[in-house]
Amino acid sequence: MSDSDFAKTPKPPYYAVIFTSLRTAVENGYGDTADRMVELAATMPGYLGVESVRDEKGFGITVSYWENREAISHWRVNAEHRVAQESGKRDWYEHYEIRVALVERAWSNTRA
Amino acid sequence: MSDSDFAKTPKPPYYAVIFTSLRTAVENGYGDTADRMVELAATMPGYLGVESVRDEKGFGITVSYWENREAISHWRVNAEHRVAQESGKRDWYEHYEIRVALVERAWSNTRA
Repeated sequence: MSDSDFAKTPKPPYYAVIFTSLRTAVENGYGDTADRMVELAATMPGYLGVESVRDEKGFGITVSYWENREAISHWRVNAEHRVAQESGKRDWYEHYEIRVALVERAWSNTRA
Repeated sequence: MSDSDFAKTPKPPYYAVIFTSLRTAVENGYGDTADRMVELAATMPGYLGVESVRDEKGFGITVSYWENREAISHWRVNAEHRVAQESGKRDWYEHYEIRVALVERAWSNTRA
């Protein structure tokens, strides 16, 4: 199995940012920027991990995990991230939804 | 654009159940059951919507939205859902993570 797709999060409480999006057909640096944002987020204080999937229709869900709301605010206003956000709104996403949520409980299962 | 992939959620607060999973190669009724669970969940009290993606590697994220924790508990113990959960552990998922989270803030953007 590919364990690397799962975020290694601590025991709750912690925060999740649920980013649901539909891509346009516009490339214009999308792939490189998406990779760079994952890399950059991982350097931010309070970052805990990320899980991300996009299907062949361009619909995607990315969930990033953070220690607290301050860490999310800090990431949200990061200068390089801001530039990416503007390209996202203008070029890359037909529509997106962002939800900031406090993870209260968590459990998992691995097949025997 | 395909708006139907996005859940039409109300203003926060409400709850999200983030289900992250890696599929096995075992089919054994998976597709029909997955469809049925989406259909069944939508009949549950307090259900608000669902967003779901799986990629070609079998890694998926499904986020379901609920009015409150009682609604989630009710869904979790639903008899038909319980049977599906057992098949999920035994046959369909190499690994999964479930996180129950209180959505505190939400915003969205539609391309101009």
